[in-house]
Amino acid sequence: MAASGTLPRTATQYVLAEPVVGPLRLEHFRREVVPLQAPEPGEVLVGNHFVAVDPVIRSRMDHNAAPGWAYRPGDTIGAVAVGLVLASSAPDVPVGARVLGFLGFRDYATVPAAEVEVIDPLLGEWPIEYGLTALGNPGLTAWVGVTAIGQVAEGETVFVSGAAGGIGSLAGQIARLSGARVIGSAGTDAKVRWLTEEVGFDAAFNYREERPAAALTRLAPDGIDVYFDNTGGPQLEAALGHLRRLGRAVLCGAVSGYDHGGSPLHIANVSDLVRGGLTVRGYVGTDHRDTWPSATAQLQDWLRRDLLRARYTVLDGLDRVPEALSQILRPGSSHTGKLLVRPSGGDHES
Amino acid sequence: MAASGTLPRTATQYVLAEPVVGPLRLEHFRREVVPLQAPEPGEVLVGNHFVAVDPVIRSRMDHNAAPGWAYRPGDTIGAVAVGLVLASSAPDVPVGARVLGFLGFRDYATVPAAEVEVIDPLLGEWPIEYGLTALGNPGLTAWVGVTAIGQVAEGETVFVSGAAGGIGSLAGQIARLSGARVIGSAGTDAKVRWLTEEVGFDAAFNYREERPAAALTRLAPDGIDVYFDNTGGPQLEAALGHLRRLGRAVLCGAVSGYDHGGSPLHIANVSDLVRGGLTVRGYVGTDHRDTWPSATAQLQDWLRRDLLRARYTVLDGLDRVPEALSQILRPGSSHTGKLLVRPSGGDHES
Repeated sequence: MAASGTLPRTATQYVLAEPVVGPLRLEHFRREVVPLQAPEPGEVLVGNHFVAVDPVIRSRMDHNAAPGWAYRPGDTIGAVAVGLVLASSAPDVPVGARVLGFLGFRDYATVPAAEVEVIDPLLGEWPIEYGLTALGNPGLTAWVGVTAIGQVAEGETVFVSGAAGGIGSLAGQIARLSGARVIGSAGTDAKVRWLTEEVGFDAAFNYREERPAAALTRLAPDGIDVYFDNTGGPQLEAALGHLRRLGRAVLCGAVSGYDHGGSPLHIANVSDLVRGGLTVRGYVGTDHRDTWPSATAQLQDWLRRDLLRARYTVLDGLDRVPEALSQILRPGSSHTGKLLVRPSGGDHES
Repeated sequence: MAASGTLPRTATQYVLAEPVVGPLRLEHFRREVVPLQAPEPGEVLVGNHFVAVDPVIRSRMDHNAAPGWAYRPGDTIGAVAVGLVLASSAPDVPVGARVLGFLGFRDYATVPAAEVEVIDPLLGEWPIEYGLTALGNPGLTAWVGVTAIGQVAEGETVFVSGAAGGIGSLAGQIARLSGARVIGSAGTDAKVRWLTEEVGFDAAFNYREERPAAALTRLAPDGIDVYFDNTGGPQLEAALGHLRRLGRAVLCGAVSGYDHGGSPLHIANVSDLVRGGLTVRGYVGTDHRDTWPSATAQLQDWLRRDLLRARYTVLDGLDRVPEALSQILRPGSSHTGKLLVRPSGGDHES
């Protein structure tokens, strides 16, 4: 086994205390300190630098989640993380490699090397957290949604809901880079200002202060060509009613539904979809892996030319996990971009 | 002016007597005999051989139809027709040419030559009514929906509602020719038998006798890949719930809604569309004209090899127009394939 410095002997982790009924509360989580095994052959010990806080985690904590998908009490709450290999018994994944994997809300993890991906080639000159933002799943998901699914073209008008989120903030930037005029929505006035003043959206509105249909009529009087949905709910219904002929609604994630069991959609007249030639399309980024190499190359190029910026907020310390998960599910939370937790695993001397 | 034999001096036509509220009734129609003008320069006189009976006509007769779309009392009820040019003052459209145009429920019509299309090259060796069926809008619409929109692939399972109709019967055949297993629904047991015994569907069910969700579970226990919708309503909702991952629902027409003001669609959880990577897409064939030349070539080839058959029912005599329009809107009507009315204009000695 190759190792870097003195290795930690314990790991701190968050596990599911009890399945969630209703809103997420502190008592659904339990913090545990457990022994950390040195890597057996084929394993690596990873110090987690950043753990991604995703709304989808909530759905796996739900008492109604499907078996296989649901966490059981005592399971480590899963999350994608990036970290540094501190010890390795796997020749393909050496000490010092930057890796990404489903490492969970932990500071350290010993896992099979086959379950992590070495992301040094992906990251190039960019910091490790880009593996969870612009160059990771949010970047690829946004790129696939805007480009392959939404087919955003020069001169079109695009509306992005949940625009201040990890995927939304990237989707808006990618749509602008594709030549579109881009409108975003968010749940606080501060985020709305951030979208237009910092991220480069052409217009934005606070969906909790202005009815989405009224805002779209005001900001896009001639209609929208593409709607990039991160929320479901009333914004989705308003956007469908505001699509121009041959418009596309791209359903990326229905965050608004994850904390209360489902986000319904009511379409009053299917004939409107037919006559308008409209498309409503859900997608999961991993179904489009064939596009990832070209997506990555383009994202790297935009980053290098400073046309695209990774957007994220960091909460320091593993103990902020319960707060972070509650925050990402709450309308009007204060973070912008992807929400990351930085456990102490990144502080390990290497 | 060039002319063929003695020309008719009057035309018989059906006009809108009063805008329709509720179900279509006889008093909404008025039969008129009007003088028929000889063609002025740039005009042609056409003897109508077949007039297409389309559900969409009903929507233009509705008291709530949008201005511009709505017929006003006294307007000739419009319909696409094919006929023979009997007199011409337009060099591009000579006497004897077979033409297609929006000629209305009339036996004869004098119209600008620019408003008709000469379909002799399209028809080749096939009879004139193929311009309203396999080689006309139904054939192209079915081809676009199955191929360009639905992207039906070898080995997939396809469900077609309204399968005994003009478009549905062609869509099912085209899906089978694309290598799919094809299930159809219709509103009478006779049509269900016709679908499997005559048209070549792999399976079919009577949606008025068996709940669509139960029928799909029975006939496609592993789910369907593509749903070709001609009805909207409960069949659409059942089909969406039965789509496999990456499934596509192709919305061709919402016939069931035309006679009562709208066909709603309720989706209980948008997350199902996201996680399944599902597509719901409405389309109008004329938005895909770029595909028509290759579509026509393929349809002609299939017809020539007797792999595809035009499917239609003919009602003889213009006076059957009110009956025909009521019939096409009624579940459980008896016709199969495209419904055509044959006015006496085709009997003119030429």
